Amino acid sequence: MIQVALFGAGRIGRIHAGNLVRQPGVRLKYVVDVHAGAAAEVAALHGASVASVDTVLADPAVKAVLIASSTDTHADLIVRAAAAGKAIFCEKPVDLTLERARAAAAAVKEAKVLCMIGFQRRYDPTFAAVKQRIAAGEIGTPEMLIVTSRDPGPPPVSYIQVSGGIFKDMLIHDFDIFRWILDDEAVSVHATGSCLVDPAIGAAGDLDCTAVTIRTAKGRLCQINTTRRAAYGYDQRFEVLGSAGMLQAGNHKPTEVTAYGAVNVSVDKPEDFFLERYRAAYASEMAHFFDAFAHGAALRTTVHDGLKALELAEAATVSWREQRIVQLS
Amino acid sequence: MIQVALFGAGRIGRIHAGNLVRQPGVRLKYVVDVHAGAAAEVAALHGASVASVDTVLADPAVKAVLIASSTDTHADLIVRAAAAGKAIFCEKPVDLTLERARAAAAAVKEAKVLCMIGFQRRYDPTFAAVKQRIAAGEIGTPEMLIVTSRDPGPPPVSYIQVSGGIFKDMLIHDFDIFRWILDDEAVSVHATGSCLVDPAIGAAGDLDCTAVTIRTAKGRLCQINTTRRAAYGYDQRFEVLGSAGMLQAGNHKPTEVTAYGAVNVSVDKPEDFFLERYRAAYASEMAHFFDAFAHGAALRTTVHDGLKALELAEAATVSWREQRIVQLS
Amino acid sequence: MIQVALFGAGRIGRIHAGNLVRQPGVRLKYVVDVHAGAAAEVAALHGASVASVDTVLADPAVKAVLIASSTDTHADLIVRAAAAGKAIFCEKPVDLTLERARAAAAAVKEAKVLCMIGFQRRYDPTFAAVKQRIAAGEIGTPEMLIVTSRDPGPPPVSYIQVSGGIFKDMLIHDFDIFRWILDDEAVSVHATGSCLVDPAIGAAGDLDCTAVTIRTAKGRLCQINTTRRAAYGYDQRFEVLGSAGMLQAGNHKPTEVTAYGAVNVSVDKPEDFFLERYRAAYASEMAHFFDAFAHGAALRTTVHDGLKALELAEAATVSWREQRIVQLS
Amino acid sequence: MIQVALFGAGRIGRIHAGNLVRQPGVRLKYVVDVHAGAAAEVAALHGASVASVDTVLADPAVKAVLIASSTDTHADLIVRAAAAGKAIFCEKPVDLTLERARAAAAAVKEAKVLCMIGFQRRYDPTFAAVKQRIAAGEIGTPEMLIVTSRDPGPPPVSYIQVSGGIFKDMLIHDFDIFRWILDDEAVSVHATGSCLVDPAIGAAGDLDCTAVTIRTAKGRLCQINTTRRAAYGYDQRFEVLGSAGMLQAGNHKPTEVTAYGAVNVSVDKPEDFFLERYRAAYASEMAHFFDAFAHGAALRTTVHDGLKALELAEAATVSWREQRIVQLS
Repeated sequence: MIQVALFGAGRIGRIHAGNLVRQPGVRLKYVVDVHAGAAAEVAALHGASVASVDTVLADPAVKAVLIASSTDTHADLIVRAAAAGKAIFCEKPVDLTLERARAAAAAVKEAKVLCMIGFQRRYDPTFAAVKQRIAAGEIGTPEMLIVTSRDPGPPPVSYIQVSGGIFKDMLIHDFDIFRWILDDEAVSVHATGSCLVDPAIGAAGDLDCTAVTIRTAKGRLCQINTTRRAAYGYDQRFEVLGSAGMLQAGNHKPTEVTAYGAVNVSVDKPEDFFLERYRAAYASEMAHFFDAFAHGAALRTTVHDGLKALELAEAATVSWREQRIVQLS
Repeated sequence: MIQVALFGAGRIGRIHAGNLVRQPGVRLKYVVDVHAGAAAEVAALHGASVASVDTVLADPAVKAVLIASSTDTHADLIVRAAAAGKAIFCEKPVDLTLERARAAAAAVKEAKVLCMIGFQRRYDPTFAAVKQRIAAGEIGTPEMLIVTSRDPGPPPVSYIQVSGGIFKDMLIHDFDIFRWILDDEAVSVHATGSCLVDPAIGAAGDLDCTAVTIRTAKGRLCQINTTRRAAYGYDQRFEVLGSAGMLQAGNHKPTEVTAYGAVNVSVDKPEDFFLERYRAAYASEMAHFFDAFAHGAALRTTVHDGLKALELAEAATVSWREQRIVQLS
Repeated sequence: MIQVALFGAGRIGRIHAGNLVRQPGVRLKYVVDVHAGAAAEVAALHGASVASVDTVLADPAVKAVLIASSTDTHADLIVRAAAAGKAIFCEKPVDLTLERARAAAAAVKEAKVLCMIGFQRRYDPTFAAVKQRIAAGEIGTPEMLIVTSRDPGPPPVSYIQVSGGIFKDMLIHDFDIFRWILDDEAVSVHATGSCLVDPAIGAAGDLDCTAVTIRTAKGRLCQINTTRRAAYGYDQRFEVLGSAGMLQAGNHKPTEVTAYGAVNVSVDKPEDFFLERYRAAYASEMAHFFDAFAHGAALRTTVHDGLKALELAEAATVSWREQRIVQLS
Repeated sequence: MIQVALFGAGRIGRIHAGNLVRQPGVRLKYVVDVHAGAAAEVAALHGASVASVDTVLADPAVKAVLIASSTDTHADLIVRAAAAGKAIFCEKPVDLTLERARAAAAAVKEAKVLCMIGFQRRYDPTFAAVKQRIAAGEIGTPEMLIVTSRDPGPPPVSYIQVSGGIFKDMLIHDFDIFRWILDDEAVSVHATGSCLVDPAIGAAGDLDCTAVTIRTAKGRLCQINTTRRAAYGYDQRFEVLGSAGMLQAGNHKPTEVTAYGAVNVSVDKPEDFFLERYRAAYASEMAHFFDAFAHGAALRTTVHDGLKALELAEAATVSWREQRIVQLS
């Protein structure tokens, strides 16, 4: 039985806890949260105990930790968990600064522990099928990637203020999709955007709509469009054009009902938000983590991936702020 | 904690066991199967014991039973479980003969126990959404129902021989859908069919393709088309025309990938077979059963529904055999 | 230059006239109609003259006639035009009685003239593509055909009264689709229906919703569902299940716009009615007729097809009236 | 009767001639082409005469000219036709240089003649429906536009060499769509691209894949992705995100057949290329031109639109060549 501790008993921490306890041979031993009540609630649900970070890291029975606490704690917890020899699953992003993220990556490397970053989209059935079909050669050589990534509505401005900005908070996922799907690294980034949804977001120094273009070492092109507010819901699509065809990853819907009415023919809107859209992905990534832990399989999303996505987010932020094309080494 | 016994540790029994143990406050206590090994395997998976029917029914701690054993055992187990005062979940059909099915229904009525029949399609997210939208008045008065129900391939002829024939084995689900969606009872049934898939099915006295037409008391019309072999997989659709519009229930797909190739534009085939297509429905019906048990809510699929679907299957069989329209009282 | 006369300057006659004059080497010489004004209007539009039936048939320069006048005139005009040695294009149906239709067919046979019946659906790009792909073997042996044929709204009851009933007026097209797509003849017909749209239709001795089942000599099955009123418009679909797959013919839409709104995701309703839906088919059938006339190619829709569809309509009418399955020789 | 002269009897000239002669009250009087044979062929088809530019412009009976000759002749013919007081329909682009295009626009202005540029996409039923629905407020304020514009295969390199480059030759249409749909002008353009299809295109100093980003005065964003080679055909889509929803303009297909096979479920590829995809648009724009000529309605696509699209193409070319963001006044 693999004993595990969870840091963070908020919304995403609860999702991970629920998926964790369904893994055969895995048990949730501890829950840690600055809000004692939240920790107690999640612990009670799964027969775990509330504990402190120190207790968890000092307990040799704990073989793995799940970091789902607030972003500013990620890098530090990675460093400490790595030093304690624990396998690590950490929610994205590694950190909001490249410096601290690199320190965390270095700690993982030195400790030679497993460290998986929760880029859950790579585990989505639709997205993973596209990746697998590209790998099987179905569309020849990938040439262009168009990513559409739209939230149903903006978070509170108080969140925006500590989010690191839209490129680090929201597009970090899209930058990871870009690297994964095109299997290539960026050589230049151009990012622009606007504040069209809520002036308060602009007042907080951020954007709410962006348009990003990336060119890769192999000359491949990627365009990403995002918004904090799509009136019709959560829109998560991408399409990959290759030399021999194209693959599109579409939205998932709650049901397959089609309605023929006096005005039009309609189907369901996409799944509401990330908890619904990526439900299967969250379950699958947890299985992947424990499978890698138990059987030594290679991780699909490493701390290196976390770093590279952050570098792109940083470059996009600079491109937008300085209104120039940013070259990457 | 509600303690439950499972009769039948085959494919569908295992599905039910897995869903059962996820219900809060529910525990699988016993597994019963004529194959001791199968019973032991399922029992071990969920911390239950292997037992005999007698032991189960005599144990007052057992409040509910799941009947997922072979069809010929259903009616007898319902009668005995009812007499023992257990709540009953029974896979469809109640029985292959109307006489025994009626006896089972009578036993349930006399014992005043809960008895739910596993017409899982009513719990499918897509099908249930159609029903709910009709009830909300979206298409006015329902007038016509077209049901498409096709298996990916025929079962072994040895199974066909004991199946009761295609109308009782396969269309029993479609007859239930008809009653549920049109919310009306049949006054006449016309059934015809052919043996186009495998001559051995014909030699066994059965059909492998059918075309059924039902007319209801209110003059509503239903057409059902079925086959034992759709080369493209498991096809489960229906559409309801009403005075103000139409609702279609479509197939579910494994992923939302669309591929643009040199020849055409393609998407996934439907989910493979009933275990995949109705995965959510199986989970949902189990939650419904224990919810009804715990909170006294009305069952969506009763033993009466089981009887009525069987009457239609019987009428269809007569219509086909005697090549005539059968009137129902 | 092939000179042609048009009988009937109503809605469908005008469509045919417009398509006729676009055929290279074809000229509309005469227009005949009991309403002199209508005839004059169509004649003026295309530089033709108004004339009587006698004049037209006596003019040796007229090589072909288009019969688009009222149904009760079709058979007689066919007989007379055939006797005059004209090539004939006649709107469906040949007649409402089998006796007169057979007489018309006999006259055509004796005169050895070309006689095409306007089953325009066979010339629809989508329907014709399905036929061609079946012929190419894409779905193996056809086994089942499901036809959905729904009008947007009922015609006036005064029309219903002289229409010959829904089976001859509306399903005649579907019976032709059945024969063409399954490439087989009926051995039995079962038809039922209801009057759910307008009681006045029932009072006129007709139905407004029907459900028909046909079994063929080869054991193939066909189900047809129709209604005089689909609140969402004109619905013209069919699907053919074969031993190796299925082909569906779907509706055509005015545009390819998809709208994502707060409530759902929607597309256009189908094309409004037959003039829009079969616009390309009407053009294509006219080209086919003059191609057959000029180059001797075989007609796709002959007077024999007109007779066979009428026989099915007659059998369906009897099946419904006498509530029995009708066997065909 | 409006008498018209056609300059250019090539592929697109023939399309225009065919549509022109179907306009009521319009007659093709002259055809002019440097290839006498081509001119004679088109003239014969429509009962016109072959003539020289001088003859055409000197004939007071000619009220309008259609310029469908090679791009390098457009500006000069516009200037001369304007001076002769003819109404002008000119294929895009006005010219490959801004200087000459501006001279043509000035000549039109001075002569006060009608001058329509053949941006046929604005007349496509699907694209025009999107525009009309935006104007009706269906999606609130437009915020983002994503344009996908892909040819099935590259033209010969000899054509590339005189084409003015991909931005002027191919994206000129997309730049026009951008201005029309967002109803706003660009303030900055970023363009990048690659040569991934054919190295010979790169050797000719051009790109074959591009990614363009435009920001407007109102802060709206537009991304355009193009390629000279989509293995699956001609791909012409765009989507507009607004504050209250999204509208997508999808591809048109030859038929509405859906095939269910052993491997997947497929539909037709998009219409082959621009002549098929925009068949209705070409007919509609010609009707619009003569409607504007006869009734004085405002033109939907003016020489000013031609100029503005060319300015964007010029800016994109500079952005790519100099690897910088280009600001527009």
